[in-house]
Amino acid sequence: MLPLILVLASGGIALLFAIFTAIRLLRVDSGNQRMREIGDAIKAGAAAFLKREYLTLLPFVIIVAVLIGVLIDFYALGSSTPGTAISYVAGAICSAVAGFIGMNIAVRANVRTAASAMHGLNPALRVAFSSGSVMGLTVVGMGLIGVTVLWIIFQNTSIIAGFGFGASSIALFARVGGGIFTKAADVGSDLVGKVEAGIPEDDPRNPGVIADNVGDNVGDVAGMGADLFESYVGSIISAIALAAGSMALISSKEALLPLMLAGAGIIASILGTFLVRSSENATFGQLLWALRKGIFASAILVAIFAGGIIYYLDMSDGLSLFICIITGLIAGTIIGTATEYYTSYEYKPTKNVAENAQTGAATVIISGFATGMMSTLIPVIAIGATILIAYELKEFYGIALAGVGLLSTLGITLATDAYGPVADNAGGIAEQAQLAPEVRQRTDALDALGNTTAATGKGFAIGSAALTSLALLAAFAQAAGLFDDGGINILKHTTLAGLLIGAMLPFIFSALTMNAVGRAAFAVVNEVRRQFREIEGLLDGEATPDYERCVDISTRGALKEMIIPGLLAVIMPIAMGLILGAEALGGMLIGSVASGFMIAITMASAGGSWDNAKKYVELGHYGGKGSDSHKAAVEGDVVGDPFKDTSGPSLNILLKLMAIVSLVFAPVFTVVTPIILYI
Amino acid sequence: MLPLILVLASGGIALLFAIFTAIRLLRVDSGNQRMREIGDAIKAGAAAFLKREYLTLLPFVIIVAVLIGVLIDFYALGSSTPGTAISYVAGAICSAVAGFIGMNIAVRANVRTAASAMHGLNPALRVAFSSGSVMGLTVVGMGLIGVTVLWIIFQNTSIIAGFGFGASSIALFARVGGGIFTKAADVGSDLVGKVEAGIPEDDPRNPGVIADNVGDNVGDVAGMGADLFESYVGSIISAIALAAGSMALISSKEALLPLMLAGAGIIASILGTFLVRSSENATFGQLLWALRKGIFASAILVAIFAGGIIYYLDMSDGLSLFICIITGLIAGTIIGTATEYYTSYEYKPTKNVAENAQTGAATVIISGFATGMMSTLIPVIAIGATILIAYELKEFYGIALAGVGLLSTLGITLATDAYGPVADNAGGIAEQAQLAPEVRQRTDALDALGNTTAATGKGFAIGSAALTSLALLAAFAQAAGLFDDGGINILKHTTLAGLLIGAMLPFIFSALTMNAVGRAAFAVVNEVRRQFREIEGLLDGEATPDYERCVDISTRGALKEMIIPGLLAVIMPIAMGLILGAEALGGMLIGSVASGFMIAITMASAGGSWDNAKKYVELGHYGGKGSDSHKAAVEGDVVGDPFKDTSGPSLNILLKLMAIVSLVFAPVFTVVTPIILYI
Repeated sequence: MLPLILVLASGGIALLFAIFTAIRLLRVDSGNQRMREIGDAIKAGAAAFLKREYLTLLPFVIIVAVLIGVLIDFYALGSSTPGTAISYVAGAICSAVAGFIGMNIAVRANVRTAASAMHGLNPALRVAFSSGSVMGLTVVGMGLIGVTVLWIIFQNTSIIAGFGFGASSIALFARVGGGIFTKAADVGSDLVGKVEAGIPEDDPRNPGVIADNVGDNVGDVAGMGADLFESYVGSIISAIALAAGSMALISSKEALLPLMLAGAGIIASILGTFLVRSSENATFGQLLWALRKGIFASAILVAIFAGGIIYYLDMSDGLSLFICIITGLIAGTIIGTATEYYTSYEYKPTKNVAENAQTGAATVIISGFATGMMSTLIPVIAIGATILIAYELKEFYGIALAGVGLLSTLGITLATDAYGPVADNAGGIAEQAQLAPEVRQRTDALDALGNTTAATGKGFAIGSAALTSLALLAAFAQAAGLFDDGGINILKHTTLAGLLIGAMLPFIFSALTMNAVGRAAFAVVNEVRRQFREIEGLLDGEATPDYERCVDISTRGALKEMIIPGLLAVIMPIAMGLILGAEALGGMLIGSVASGFMIAITMASAGGSWDNAKKYVELGHYGGKGSDSHKAAVEGDVVGDPFKDTSGPSLNILLKLMAIVSLVFAPVFTVVTPIILYI
Repeated sequence: MLPLILVLASGGIALLFAIFTAIRLLRVDSGNQRMREIGDAIKAGAAAFLKREYLTLLPFVIIVAVLIGVLIDFYALGSSTPGTAISYVAGAICSAVAGFIGMNIAVRANVRTAASAMHGLNPALRVAFSSGSVMGLTVVGMGLIGVTVLWIIFQNTSIIAGFGFGASSIALFARVGGGIFTKAADVGSDLVGKVEAGIPEDDPRNPGVIADNVGDNVGDVAGMGADLFESYVGSIISAIALAAGSMALISSKEALLPLMLAGAGIIASILGTFLVRSSENATFGQLLWALRKGIFASAILVAIFAGGIIYYLDMSDGLSLFICIITGLIAGTIIGTATEYYTSYEYKPTKNVAENAQTGAATVIISGFATGMMSTLIPVIAIGATILIAYELKEFYGIALAGVGLLSTLGITLATDAYGPVADNAGGIAEQAQLAPEVRQRTDALDALGNTTAATGKGFAIGSAALTSLALLAAFAQAAGLFDDGGINILKHTTLAGLLIGAMLPFIFSALTMNAVGRAAFAVVNEVRRQFREIEGLLDGEATPDYERCVDISTRGALKEMIIPGLLAVIMPIAMGLILGAEALGGMLIGSVASGFMIAITMASAGGSWDNAKKYVELGHYGGKGSDSHKAAVEGDVVGDPFKDTSGPSLNILLKLMAIVSLVFAPVFTVVTPIILYI
């Protein structure tokens, strides 16, 4: 039991360190009266959204838990304890709590980051990054402890998969709902404020400005936290499932390895966070290096720890296992770097998109979209090579280990990612509270950095989603007995039909979420217009807008719109398994990974590239701010918003969720005859 | 031999009817001096492009023919006759000739359509539609005779697959090259002429106007002819291959059925063309019905003929075979109708895109893109259902038969499709020759009709491409012995890696072609700008622009840019088969079909929807012509151009070409050990 105690201990250390960091962060000065007011408004809006989101999801969670208990635990597994249902509820709660904590810290950190920016760049970086660390460490700590405890109690991989399902389903709704909220508020307030009324971004006269700030927190922070919580948990579960099979040996070294690796990753991440600091007047490159230093150091530490763990467990094929883990780490780094290449204006692709702004919005869109499609090349090669290498060495268990390796340093990579929205919000608060220009300059520097790390983080999230969903697919195939039946053969009609439907789902899902943003944004546009029209003296700054109503409209829109895409992801795998059978479901999963991976990368890269092409033009290229080129580039940026912040990131969860639903329901598919066989 | 003689006879009838129609068409008056001048310029430009395109492809064809002869015929098949190489060259030549004839008729028909429009709507419709018939019947006649003759001579499905390869490779280059040409000239002349100089579309003062007209012929007519020639031939070859297996029994009823069905389709198509006529002052609905009448009548006739053929051949399982054929016909109709629903402004999706023009270009783009993604739903269900039904009845042979059924009426469906660009061009000539306004009104009516039939035709082309490439994939799997080895198992690392790479290829391919349009258009923009600047009195109509130079620049740009995407499609399957093996190649093919099918539909529908949303705004909605909404809608239309006319349609050929390359090279993969097994 010593290894498992060590694993639980490292999870505990993560949570303790998160609490310690949070307490230190809350002691930081939160600025003047006006800043605190703004901060409180954001805090209240975000808390209200999250509360209503969780209340909306409560009946869903209860219904699914009952279904799982009856269908899987009692009927298919013939058990008297509803273990899978309990795991499911635990996963849902942990995911919700992780999102809740991350968001609560973020909304408190943004005003403190703005206040610290009054003193200098380094204090501001420390505060923003600390809040990211709290989020990152909470996610990994809760994830690891949750999986480990359930594994010790039930010692059954099918049951702990329920934990992943719970986490996934909350994550999907959080990503989709938060993504719709943030973009509806952003687009809605910008379209009326910036374009129609001609007031600057983040201006306090804009009724949608608080909703926009709230959106950054509920979408980018809470949504991303839930997303990666899910990836993290999913990768560990798939590795245990593929190691232990249906044998469920808790003492199995193969099952211990992913847990211990995750524990080692936590320690490495905590050590890495100490390296993130910068000097005053740091250049962009120096700031970026401050963050990178922490990530690289953690990765190197994990590699060393991994060697130590394999040595300690005295595993045969130790070198093979080590190579699998390292391959995952390297693939993640390559994908992150490639995403940065395609989206940063330091490099040719995005410079080319900016150049196309000279001939209008259409050419910006075409070239940005082409850049996004082109950017699938390197990630596919990286993932393809990882699959070939890891499988040659340890079959699907090797692929799962590569996924765990990639995500082992999540504690710190998530910190650098979650830090971005906090810095962005700090800038908004500085603008609204009319702080000195140098404060805004400092927060802008941190924000620009956040955009780069966000692009890298997105590549990272997509890569981990691909590996995790492939490993979960293999775990599902194992649980459904497909390996023994000759695999998943695409030369069968049911598999072929399943594969085509699977390839279609990410397209339908993206269409639904993009249209949802459009509808929700339209409601915000109308409300902002109404306030400008009806509240006298608003534009002159003599009256206060009704911020709350905009938050409320965004909330209602987002919660209404998240239902259908969310249900689609849960219902489709179950329907496919029951109608066309488990093998067709396997086809559907692989089809969805194949097309979903490509669209997710295309959307993330195109969106990032448009965003940065606009920034490049704003730096004075091709006419600079206010020129026709700038207008064209802004259109590209607006198109990119739902691409990169709503549809694209939600796709990651769609892929993983469908795979884990299949894994959880696999026992049902083995005892129920698919409908097609009756025809 | 009687059945085969009947098949050859129906091919001969198609060609005779095409010649007869062509002669009658050439007797039609070609208008006044000015019109003839314009017509001659278009004719010369198109002929020059085609000549240079074929010359550019000549070395490629020779090299591939030698490679095929050495690698496949001599080495892998151990034959002393280079049968596959001969088939390959024959396919390439037939495809080139079909494109050449179709284009030569089209460039002669456009000026005659304009001249006939001076007398009325019905004569103009008859002329434009006749030219489409010549093209359609040439394609099916040559395709059917080619396959049948080679089949009689060699009696080997592997060898006749070479015919399909030859046709595909020319088709891909023609589609890509023509697609780049047409959009480069279109975008280039519009951006400078309409936007910068403020002169109307098709104005004779615009130096790019002839190049734009030439583009309609080389891209939409020649490119589409080659594309569908290839689908037609490919579907017949795959059906024969799956019927005869490696046994190659020429007397086999299963091998005779697709040939006779194609022959019956030709007769049905010819009879259908007689129904296409309209009254003067026909409404849009009546014009559309005139075309539909012909298509529906042909489809019903084919169904009757199919029953007769199955009865004549006295086949067991006759009803099953009949249902397979009918399923294909119905699937094609459903996909065509669905495409029309998503792209016509008569329906909600495109109206919604137009509505979004009120809030700017970005919202037009987002909603159009979402519409495109959403439009994958019905085609996937239609193809999925066809796969399930046809396979349940007759396995992959059933799927191939469904493909042949879908394409059996190609003679007339292609006619309604190829008619569009002719009507479009006739309008351009009427504008340039400053004919009376009612002439332009009539050609506009025919053009609007052409847009609708083009959307339906695109859906049809995509659906047939999906079925054909799946049938070719099955034929490849059979030839490579994969069925006997347990199928194509995606739970193997090589298949999985192949599948991901396959899913990526359509993205890379689309990115390459979109960027190619951008670069080629940029060259045209510069040339048109130069002429406006340097040729004195050009804008006042006192000097003639140098049309030829624009044609020349478009030609050079298109031919240069078509090379890399074209080679990619040929090299990738061979490389994959040699490196990771035949099963991984199967994975790659299915991956490319899965993602390529979705992107092709998305691009076709989004492009069509943007185009028609612009037309809807021009009808006076949301501010009408010249309003901000109109400007936003125009941006959407420009984004849609490369989507729907370059990248999207080229994807169909990419999928089929990669499948047929695999089929042709299958004998090599069975004797060569893949490189991965050496590692």
